[in-house]
Amino acid sequence: MMTRESQRVMMLAGAAAIALAGLLGHTSPASAKTHDIHMTAVESDIVIDGGGEKYAAWTFNGTMPGPVVRVTEGDTINFTLTNPATNKNPHAMDFHAAEIDFLKNYKAINAGETISYTFVAKKPGIFFYHCGAPPMIQHIARGMFGAIIVDPKDASVWPKADREYVLIQSEFFKNPGDVQAMFDRKFDGMMFNGGIFKYHPFVTGGGKLDAKPGERVRVYFVNAGPNEFSSFHPIGEIWDNVYESGNPANKLTGVQTYVVGPGSAATFDVVVESAGAYPLVTHSLTGALRGAIAVLLASPDAKPSTNLMPMVPWELPAKK
Amino acid sequence: MMTRESQRVMMLAGAAAIALAGLLGHTSPASAKTHDIHMTAVESDIVIDGGGEKYAAWTFNGTMPGPVVRVTEGDTINFTLTNPATNKNPHAMDFHAAEIDFLKNYKAINAGETISYTFVAKKPGIFFYHCGAPPMIQHIARGMFGAIIVDPKDASVWPKADREYVLIQSEFFKNPGDVQAMFDRKFDGMMFNGGIFKYHPFVTGGGKLDAKPGERVRVYFVNAGPNEFSSFHPIGEIWDNVYESGNPANKLTGVQTYVVGPGSAATFDVVVESAGAYPLVTHSLTGALRGAIAVLLASPDAKPSTNLMPMVPWELPAKK
Amino acid sequence: MMTRESQRVMMLAGAAAIALAGLLGHTSPASAKTHDIHMTAVESDIVIDGGGEKYAAWTFNGTMPGPVVRVTEGDTINFTLTNPATNKNPHAMDFHAAEIDFLKNYKAINAGETISYTFVAKKPGIFFYHCGAPPMIQHIARGMFGAIIVDPKDASVWPKADREYVLIQSEFFKNPGDVQAMFDRKFDGMMFNGGIFKYHPFVTGGGKLDAKPGERVRVYFVNAGPNEFSSFHPIGEIWDNVYESGNPANKLTGVQTYVVGPGSAATFDVVVESAGAYPLVTHSLTGALRGAIAVLLASPDAKPSTNLMPMVPWELPAKK
Repeated sequence: MMTRESQRVMMLAGAAAIALAGLLGHTSPASAKTHDIHMTAVESDIVIDGGGEKYAAWTFNGTMPGPVVRVTEGDTINFTLTNPATNKNPHAMDFHAAEIDFLKNYKAINAGETISYTFVAKKPGIFFYHCGAPPMIQHIARGMFGAIIVDPKDASVWPKADREYVLIQSEFFKNPGDVQAMFDRKFDGMMFNGGIFKYHPFVTGGGKLDAKPGERVRVYFVNAGPNEFSSFHPIGEIWDNVYESGNPANKLTGVQTYVVGPGSAATFDVVVESAGAYPLVTHSLTGALRGAIAVLLASPDAKPSTNLMPMVPWELPAKK
Repeated sequence: MMTRESQRVMMLAGAAAIALAGLLGHTSPASAKTHDIHMTAVESDIVIDGGGEKYAAWTFNGTMPGPVVRVTEGDTINFTLTNPATNKNPHAMDFHAAEIDFLKNYKAINAGETISYTFVAKKPGIFFYHCGAPPMIQHIARGMFGAIIVDPKDASVWPKADREYVLIQSEFFKNPGDVQAMFDRKFDGMMFNGGIFKYHPFVTGGGKLDAKPGERVRVYFVNAGPNEFSSFHPIGEIWDNVYESGNPANKLTGVQTYVVGPGSAATFDVVVESAGAYPLVTHSLTGALRGAIAVLLASPDAKPSTNLMPMVPWELPAKK
Repeated sequence: MMTRESQRVMMLAGAAAIALAGLLGHTSPASAKTHDIHMTAVESDIVIDGGGEKYAAWTFNGTMPGPVVRVTEGDTINFTLTNPATNKNPHAMDFHAAEIDFLKNYKAINAGETISYTFVAKKPGIFFYHCGAPPMIQHIARGMFGAIIVDPKDASVWPKADREYVLIQSEFFKNPGDVQAMFDRKFDGMMFNGGIFKYHPFVTGGGKLDAKPGERVRVYFVNAGPNEFSSFHPIGEIWDNVYESGNPANKLTGVQTYVVGPGSAATFDVVVESAGAYPLVTHSLTGALRGAIAVLLASPDAKPSTNLMPMVPWELPAKK
């Protein structure tokens, strides 16, 4: 039996909030659902750091990353992308959770056009989504990416998580028009969720990822690239489990660090037993020390999490 | 019981054809076979792109990559390498499927010399082979590499594939004499099977990988390097299974992208359900957009595949 | 029942010997032990190659890498770090085998200070340890790293090894004060256990890793980074098993090459059947050919191994 619900992902203002597209669409195993997801390609300045510096971003719905989409294995997604007439570039959408013809569905549309397609999320996991319009390396570097979670239809196939976060690593190129720098891998910073040291309260007074001691914290980790490999590690902790591509069938146990390639993703569980700070980093240090650190802060009085992807004002780039 | 058959891998002219060494040697589980494999080190110009530009390659048997060797777990390979007197450099052969003394068997031989050795392919999988003569980084970059498939002796340990391909990723350095550029990782293009956008019909009108909807397509993927890591992904699809090193015992399920290091290999199964185009890429985009894209084209009237490694005229390098 | 033994890791003179801290602490499954581990941050010149060139290293206990620590799953480690007043920089210690608050335990201490903390090694495996004082990328590049082995409390969970080695890959930057070169990934050499071609008797007359034919040789492999990924491969052999993070639960079979990210580690078993030389390398050749080659030499009259990490005079850097 198919139920149907309309979920319009609204365009978001700045970094104030994050649309939890599909969170309302959580399903019981018995009922596959249909989700109407609508995103808009937005070419606009966004604030990249606490100094108020503006960055000429291209995004889905106005934020980098775009909204988290969440569905359940077996659900149908009716997706629509609008490229407003006020834009100057073609854009496109490629969902790694979909299994559909690239030519017809992922093609770039010009400003003023709209494209729609439908797919069934057949395989559970955490998947990357991104714009594939040429030059794709630039569309990703400028901010057109996000994550789609496909929950397993049988939730018992893995441990229940007490708290969940989405972290998306991506490279920051300060001149978004310099495509050659992107080909040459000369990134200027490494971001989690579109910010430099965005969740690093000890350095910047910024945000953090909250947890209570004893909780199983599940991190849906995506590496947007466009080029670099990530070596994802929790300082002061060991991953209880790592699931390649976020598929519960691909379970690793007791892993200190796990490699996630660009355009890939994996799910990481950590059980933090005692109060304290546990920075999540890529252990390729030229990336970590240029921004890819997110502090998981475990405290008995941590507030319940309300948001898969906490948004805070972006911080100043690290000094080298 | 050991049967014996002689399989001489002939020297191939240009990119016109590919020797399927060992394909004739397919065995039933009960009968381990012996294969006589002979390769010749060839130092000659090959055509690297549609513009007719010549590249001073070093190859096995005249093509980059060299011929695919295929045997069954337990088979014996009698291998002979000839380095003709007309060559100018020492050459060697290192089979990753072999378990034999490096010093004696993989040593470089001078022009005018021949070397022979024997090994049993004890472990199933997809394995890299390459020249190891110093500087090895240059011998690989100039084209002296290929793949050897060791089929499991019990074919029931994994699903039957309907169609099979070999894809070998390698870096292109336009000046094959600039060894320093190789050490500095300044590659000029990224190739699959020795070509830039070789299987990209939409850009170049060149070749493609054919399949019919519903078929299980098995891609034996090798990363020849010499330096870069690959993040192998099917656009518009999800790998049904990934087998680390091509060993059926190392099975992953439902993987969007998998990291294959230089000098490594893995087997990737995809079941394409509907007609359409599914480009296989490294998602490290500086590599994909400089040549490492191979389009898998699913169509109900796809011709049967006759060749593990389709050869087509090489294409122009991508514009950045 | 907790037993207690005192194991003081002594400061080592040069490269003459290696402290096998914890080797005495090997335990039977029934008896968790407590280990007192004391290390000293040493800022001093060490000899980096056979030419007698001195390198202004920062180390734990005077050697690069620092001493191997070995305990059993469930054991307690009381760790103390001393930063002598004669030093000029803050230092710290981060054990990847520990699950404890980063802020309190891994903080940098100034010259003249001491810090102590306690942790239980709950998860078996091979783990990285390193200094985390800023800039961490430099503290690791200058030599402040090592390995801690946490043996599974039930030894029957994996095959018994006949011989064991620790190999730690790390990048060499010839100017240890040039932090920008470290951020730019411009390494000048690639080391195993702090030496360039340290275990390469055919090139340098230096050391080697010994084994007898038929032995199961277990290599505890750590990638210290600080930046590069390793593609670890045995020339002339195939890994019988690879265990991600060294955890017996994460078993792969028949693997030619395995990717180990910076800040990660894995355990590699190889059974060498016949006498001969089997160089262990990273197959990212710009690393291998600049120093990351260790020859495993199998001979019927190989001496018993007495040392997890054989130390030999360091060799000259490879010529490119």
